[in-house]
Amino acid sequence: MSELSETIEVRVRFSEIDSLRMVWHGAYVLYMEDAREAFGRKYGLEYMTIFRAGYFAPVYDMHLRFLRPATIDDILTVKISWKPAVGGKLCFAYEIRRKSDGELMLIADTIQLFTTAEGDFDPSAPDFYEEWKKKNGVI
Amino acid sequence: MSELSETIEVRVRFSEIDSLRMVWHGAYVLYMEDAREAFGRKYGLEYMTIFRAGYFAPVYDMHLRFLRPATIDDILTVKISWKPAVGGKLCFAYEIRRKSDGELMLIADTIQLFTTAEGDFDPSAPDFYEEWKKKNGVI
Amino acid sequence: MSELSETIEVRVRFSEIDSLRMVWHGAYVLYMEDAREAFGRKYGLEYMTIFRAGYFAPVYDMHLRFLRPATIDDILTVKISWKPAVGGKLCFAYEIRRKSDGELMLIADTIQLFTTAEGDFDPSAPDFYEEWKKKNGVI
Amino acid sequence: MSELSETIEVRVRFSEIDSLRMVWHGAYVLYMEDAREAFGRKYGLEYMTIFRAGYFAPVYDMHLRFLRPATIDDILTVKISWKPAVGGKLCFAYEIRRKSDGELMLIADTIQLFTTAEGDFDPSAPDFYEEWKKKNGVI
Repeated sequence: MSELSETIEVRVRFSEIDSLRMVWHGAYVLYMEDAREAFGRKYGLEYMTIFRAGYFAPVYDMHLRFLRPATIDDILTVKISWKPAVGGKLCFAYEIRRKSDGELMLIADTIQLFTTAEGDFDPSAPDFYEEWKKKNGVI
Repeated sequence: MSELSETIEVRVRFSEIDSLRMVWHGAYVLYMEDAREAFGRKYGLEYMTIFRAGYFAPVYDMHLRFLRPATIDDILTVKISWKPAVGGKLCFAYEIRRKSDGELMLIADTIQLFTTAEGDFDPSAPDFYEEWKKKNGVI
Repeated sequence: MSELSETIEVRVRFSEIDSLRMVWHGAYVLYMEDAREAFGRKYGLEYMTIFRAGYFAPVYDMHLRFLRPATIDDILTVKISWKPAVGGKLCFAYEIRRKSDGELMLIADTIQLFTTAEGDFDPSAPDFYEEWKKKNGVI
Repeated sequence: MSELSETIEVRVRFSEIDSLRMVWHGAYVLYMEDAREAFGRKYGLEYMTIFRAGYFAPVYDMHLRFLRPATIDDILTVKISWKPAVGGKLCFAYEIRRKSDGELMLIADTIQLFTTAEGDFDPSAPDFYEEWKKKNGVI
């Protein structure tokens, strides 16, 4: 089974650093979302693709571990990898590294649930997602 | 004609200060929006009221002048005042002061335009807004 | 041993809701920080208290589980509780509820590590934190 | 006199769109700061360059006019141009366009003031800034 992953670069913004010139911990949530959207564009799983299939994919669980602080002028690489899961779950793992030396700064995971427009969660995977998995060789 | 205004208190957040322990200039846009929403609740001009009348009121013009920097632990007062304007415009002025000594930190103005759900701007004021002005004695 | 906790109210901001009129998941990180700062003010463990003792307390681990989506106009209560931990760790648990009906929206945990100004992590608790625990009857 | 300008591309983030799938107006302040930092890197006027010369350059005045709303999936170009000004002022103009068709979405201006670490504003231009202007042929 092939690995589905994408890597983006993020430049730390002045507005994201705190009074210690370190990146505010909440900013990484944005970097992770940037990576998730880039993954969606690469593999055809964008927000709008999900929406047009009649679903949303809200984040249900999010775990971040901050290993080293990024600082102003750092360029970071954010690698997002798709993780197998049963049913209507969309799981990703993240690794954020400092580009200059490859140091690992953060590891994280998210779980999203496919819900209908009415907000109902279907524990089985939606058809469009099963097809997506087949098409991408991960089923 | 009575003045329509509302004043709220805002406590500076750690995540809003920059590497100089000063509030990042973009944070004031949020404080102003907090004040605008409080004004809406006080005078019956909430986002959802406008929406249910078939309109939106996107910000069209925004001007901020930063007189003194707020810092961590500051509590600020944000005063918003409704300003008369012709047609389908919604105009506010803002004064942000440090609560401890009343020092003026920022003055600002916004202009919003009433647009329909289709994105069309009607240069005359919508009926619901004319009624709102009458009801509040500012016409 | 007494429980050390604080509860704050947060009003959902227009800028925090997404295209589904649900609160963007990253906004809860801010609500949690607001609660952490209120806890610090209540129990004498503010950012500046820690800083003056020669330490920082960066977030090392953060876990959030999103149970129900908050929407525009919701008022939320954020309860933060101090959790016992060995050594130089500062642990909190969070419960976010909808104020109107008490529904639980989010549970979360954070772990912060006391580090020196040089960025070194001391696995034993700093003296000032040991004293703080004694003073608050949690040791 | 040559024009000093820089143009960057910004992709609209899911977290930046509001309930109408339009970019929240406060997000443009971030896009403008991204452009300012890119300008600084291109012409040697970064935040850290200014800081090492003993100065800060806080935003003193900011004006934005929102002409068309950007929406999800839009890619925007942000052009920042340096503007001549007397004394210790740093002035920029901004044009934000939709990349796909070149439509103008926003025009804006900022004025920054050079202040010392003590927060004093010197109405004459700092030496390092005069040298910068000479070096870049705009004096």
